[in-house]
Order: sequence, then structure tokens, then C-alpha cells
Amino acid sequence: MAEQSLIFPRAEYQTRLHQLQIQMEEDGLAVLLLTTPADIFYVTGFLTRFWESPARPWFVVIPAKGDPVAVIPSIGADLMGRTWMTDIRTWTAPNPYDDGISLLADTITALSPQHSRIGVPMGPETHLRMPLADYAELSHQIGARHMADATHTVQRVREIKSAAEVAKIRASCAIAARAFDRVPDFARAGQGLDAVFRAFQIALLQEGADWVSYVAGGAGPGGYGDVISPARQTPLQPGDILMLDTGAVRDGYFCDFDRNYSIGPANDTAKHMHRTLWHATEHALQTLRPDMRAADAHRLMADVITREGFAPAQGRLGHGLGVALTEWPSFTPQDQTVLRDGMVLTLEPGIFGAGGVGMVHEENILLTQRGPELLSPRAPKDLPEI
Amino acid sequence: MAEQSLIFPRAEYQTRLHQLQIQMEEDGLAVLLLTTPADIFYVTGFLTRFWESPARPWFVVIPAKGDPVAVIPSIGADLMGRTWMTDIRTWTAPNPYDDGISLLADTITALSPQHSRIGVPMGPETHLRMPLADYAELSHQIGARHMADATHTVQRVREIKSAAEVAKIRASCAIAARAFDRVPDFARAGQGLDAVFRAFQIALLQEGADWVSYVAGGAGPGGYGDVISPARQTPLQPGDILMLDTGAVRDGYFCDFDRNYSIGPANDTAKHMHRTLWHATEHALQTLRPDMRAADAHRLMADVITREGFAPAQGRLGHGLGVALTEWPSFTPQDQTVLRDGMVLTLEPGIFGAGGVGMVHEENILLTQRGPELLSPRAPKDLPEI
Repeated sequence: MAEQSLIFPRAEYQTRLHQLQIQMEEDGLAVLLLTTPADIFYVTGFLTRFWESPARPWFVVIPAKGDPVAVIPSIGADLMGRTWMTDIRTWTAPNPYDDGISLLADTITALSPQHSRIGVPMGPETHLRMPLADYAELSHQIGARHMADATHTVQRVREIKSAAEVAKIRASCAIAARAFDRVPDFARAGQGLDAVFRAFQIALLQEGADWVSYVAGGAGPGGYGDVISPARQTPLQPGDILMLDTGAVRDGYFCDFDRNYSIGPANDTAKHMHRTLWHATEHALQTLRPDMRAADAHRLMADVITREGFAPAQGRLGHGLGVALTEWPSFTPQDQTVLRDGMVLTLEPGIFGAGGVGMVHEENILLTQRGPELLSPRAPKDLPEI
Repeated sequence: MAEQSLIFPRAEYQTRLHQLQIQMEEDGLAVLLLTTPADIFYVTGFLTRFWESPARPWFVVIPAKGDPVAVIPSIGADLMGRTWMTDIRTWTAPNPYDDGISLLADTITALSPQHSRIGVPMGPETHLRMPLADYAELSHQIGARHMADATHTVQRVREIKSAAEVAKIRASCAIAARAFDRVPDFARAGQGLDAVFRAFQIALLQEGADWVSYVAGGAGPGGYGDVISPARQTPLQPGDILMLDTGAVRDGYFCDFDRNYSIGPANDTAKHMHRTLWHATEHALQTLRPDMRAADAHRLMADVITREGFAPAQGRLGHGLGVALTEWPSFTPQDQTVLRDGMVLTLEPGIFGAGGVGMVHEENILLTQRGPELLSPRAPKDLPEI
């Protein structure tokens, strides 16, 4: 059981813990309670696909000082024991009468004074991964302490990626890039989109993905609208624009970028849309800087799209990226999150086309003081033809 | 936009709705609010991997009478519009100031009287997939209504699978079975376990999985302990027992079963463990009946394991299966859920071996009045040797 499975050197986790504890102090939190795969992986290095089962809750408790405590089902003790975590408390789960709640309450109360604030992420882009009734019971059992929103605490730390994290995301991007290069080998007229999606997932695994958490895309004559549907069996036709988008995972880190292809010659509008999205991305690559806001990133890209006579896609035009497929901030007109040196982000300009015939393009970047540094290889300016 | 993507005939969804509304009336709920991928897919047929992004909440509201209402980000309108749903209300998400909450509150209040109970699943094996702060705001906006636990409401309906659902699970099992048959082609001494996991995922896709939401396993001399870790690069050795377990997905339905293999000849203890688990499963296949409890299923299998001189694995020895990798009930000594005709379940006896060298075996069944009907092809009694 001694073999460790750290993914990063221990010092990386100690730095993360230290930064979270500084932020906790600023935010007035005595303890931070984490429940989601991304937050728990970030703090502990505990990486498993077992999260796919909703049956069991998992908890990590971070005190104001000292090491974090894992409060987890016994089935995870072995794997957690191979991370850098040393204080691991387990119960036999699932237990319909007390699924770790009394153990968790005891842990929290021992680590925090009366009347203190227990941080739980409650804000945008978060959720609580435990039964709501158990959360109410926990709130009751911790007595005079009370739950407080820790969204800011977690996000300000997780959003700045270390060099080691950037290297992991770059590796995932490289895997996807090699798979995208092979798309012309398996996507052609007459092929069903479902077969293309399967072949693309196979290519991602062959190129080194540990698993493929996300593949999406679209295809249609001159463009596409819906980009979140499962692939239909409809065969690709000449003139179709095919888009594939992936969140492939290696060592727990995601990429999230896409590529467009024309099946046979594209019409002029499709070519124009692709060049417009390429230029919108290029504009952001040239001008985005720390201290701008998420809303500024939206404006930079939307302006180029509008200037070319198209309507920007509704919703966001990019977002954070790392231990989850999508992280905050969201490049929308509303999001005032300050962009910071060390953020990993996606630039994802989209065109909302007439009759649902649009297009979307996406690259992954590291934001630095000198501007964005590409983590995904740059897409070609002109729509490639298969 | 007219092309439908129903997965099942419309009547299937109407039956589900009807059953939920009967249960809602019994449980005194004026409205049922659903937020998770499995619950929303079950009611609507809305199937997408877009759930991988935690950025946006999605809601389905079921009134006491009449059709359900989807309250969703506009990016999902196209796909939801191709399901059987007709009342689809959208907002442009993510919106950090009001991420659908006022639209959702308006929908709920229009569909329910004052002082009524709004059902939300809060119990074991559930979670709320929306920000906790938004849930508090929603509870405030719905005024004199109050939130009530709808775990029972949802579980009593979802746990009984229709013939159409059983056919889907059987199809996913058949895909996995074909992939398991190919394991001897790519798993052999000297091969890293990580390469085996990749090859197995590729085989699952080649055999027809839409995507592979779960692959786990273990390998070690004479058996294994941890079954939730990502695969390490350690090469397989003669004498190792290799286990692969998968939740492959086709049309939104999961399988969840495993197979064991010996790399070269197995030692006598490993052979004995495998036969013991096979007999434990066989005993449940022969004797499990509706009206037994989940705890009875645990006892049936644990007794065989104990009689053969082994210790049963901690935690559960099987569970429900369907639109999620694992569903309730859990075969533990505590779970008193009544087993019912039409449940799809896994039989998953495990041995907790000395020094962490154990073994686990799993099959998928449909429970009927005549007893279990296998959905996965039966594993061989004797541990197969590669």
C-alpha cells in the first residue's frame, strides 16, 4: 500500500493548502468543507472515476492551520492513502442512517471554535455533492457554528494555475491535437456522425487520454446550431461543416477545444464564418491582459463577430479550464470577474447563424502579463476541407 | 429543428410522467423539481454529455397535472425541443446575477397553490445540482410554499424499469460482453495496466458504446484490494489477477459488471475466491425474489462467502442500475428497501482478502416474480487464464 500516486510532488499540494488557508483567513472561515470531485482532487490528488456513482458522499475538511482531513467511505481509504493525505477517517458506506455525517460533524467541530464560520462553496458554477437532508443534519450537528459561502475562497486559489498544472493541461491539449489531426482519416461524406464521434474518442485514447469525459460537436449544411446533442446516425454530406469538441483527460487535467472541417468544398458564408471566428480569437490573443474583466473578453470577441456582420452566439464566449471541463469565469457581458496572470482560459467565439446555421471555434490559453500563451495548437485561419 | 430525438416512443415518457404524478399525489407534493442528469433524462429524454460542465443549472418542473416544464439555459433549447417536451422556458446562462432562479420561481409558483409542498430529492444517493445560494434564493422566492423531500417519490418510480428500459440495459450489457471477450487480445504479462484500461475503452467504443462513463479495475498477485484507482503503468506479471469493471453507455443506459482474468496460472486461493464469488452470485440468482429486502440480498451473498472461509467486502454487495451507473438500493446489512418486480440490479459479491488481496465479481439482473433474469452473460465458474 506504500506506493504513492501523487500526480504532483507533495510541495505542490502544500502550496495549494497554504494558499487556501491564507484565503480562508481573509474570508473569515474557520474550516473549509469540500464535496466535489474537482475540489477534492485539487487539494488531495485523489483521482478516480468512482465519482460516476452518486451513491456515496466524500468530504475533505481544511482547518485554519494544519493538514486537511479526508472523511470518506472506506472503499476509498486505499487510494486516499496513496496521496499525500495522512489524516483519513472512514466509515462503511452507503449507510442509510448515518452516511458519514456524525463523523464529519465531529471532525468539523474539533477543528473549529464555537460561533465560527464553516465555508462551503454556494455560489455560481458550484454545487454541493451530498444529500440535502444530510447537509441540514450536518448544519444541526455543528451547533453554534454556521455555514458560509466559500465560493470566493476556492475560486481565487484554484483559478491561478501553477506551472505544473499548466504542463498537465498542455499535455492534454497535445493529445487532443494529435487526435484532431487524424479526423480526416475517419470523417468523410457518407459516414454517420455517431461513427465519427466513436472514432474520435478512440483516437483520443490511442493518443494518450486516460479517459474521454467530453466529446461534443455538430454537423450540418454550411454550419450547425446545436452543439450539445449526442451524435445522430445521419451520414455526413458534401457541404456539411463538421465540428468536434473535446474534454480529454490526462492525469486529471482537461483540455477543451474544438476544430471545424468542411466535408468537400464549403460555401462562402461558411468560409467567412470560420475566418471571422479565427480573427475574433486572434484579436483576443493579441489584446487580452490581466486586470481586464471576463466581460471585456466577451466584448473583444463579440465586436469582431459583429463587425463582420454576424450575431455572436448567446451565452458565453469562453471560460476557465483545469481540473474540470469548464471553470469560472464565464466570458459573458455580465461577468465582472477580474482576469489574472496564471489563469487558464478558453477563447470560444461563436456565431449564431440564420436558421440555426452557425459555427463555434475554441482555443485554450494561459493568461500572462505579456498576454495569452496558446496551450492548444492554433487552428488554421481557413476552414480545412476533407 | 423538427427532427425528433426521443430514444423511446412518446408513450413511454407519458407513462413515466403519469406514474410520477400518482406518486406525487400519494406523497402530498404539488410540484416536483428535478435538477440532475439522471432525473431529467428519465422524464424528458434529454441526453447530452454537456452535464460535464458544472457552469449551468438545468431544471425540470413536474406539476400535479399536465405536462412537465423545462426551465433551461438557451444553449439547450434546440436539443430539448427535439424531445417530447413542449413547454420549454429558457434564459441566457451563465448569468451571475440570476441564473434562471426568477424564471424557475415564476414557473413553480404558477403551477402550485400557496402553502403547498415542492418536492426536491434530498435523501440517500441524491444531490441537488444547482448552487446552494440559488436554492436558498428560490426557497425565498416561492413564498409560502416549502421544500419537501421527494426521494421516495422519484425512487419508487424510477426503480421499476419498463420493458423498453430493460432492452436498453441489455444492449449496453451486450456491448460490454463483446469487449470483455476481447480482453485476452490486449491484456498479457508485461503490459501496463494503463494500456489495458485504454485498450478496453477502445474495445467498448468499437463494440458500440456511445461513450464510456466508467472503467475501473485492479490487478495484483493472487488478487487485488483497491478497485477505484486509475490504472498505473506497472506491467502485469504472471500470477496477477486482473479485474476490469465498466459502465458503458448506449442511448443513456448503463451496464455495470466486471470480469476477472488470471495472467498465467492462478494460485489455489485465487481460484477458490473466484469460485466462491461465482457461487455467491449463483445463490442470489437462484433465491432472490421480490418482497425480499436489500439487506436480504446482502445476507444471501455474504453467507456463501463466509461459509467458504472468506470475509465479505466492506460496504455493499450490489445495487440498482439504469440511467445512472449506480442507483439505489444498496445491498448492505442496513438497507431495508423492498426489492420489487421490475428492478434492474447488480449482484456484486466481494471478498476482503488478507493483506488487501481480495476479489470482486459482478453481474446485472432484472428481478421478476420468477427470480432474477440475467442481463449480463454469466461469467465462467472457473477463473479464466490469459
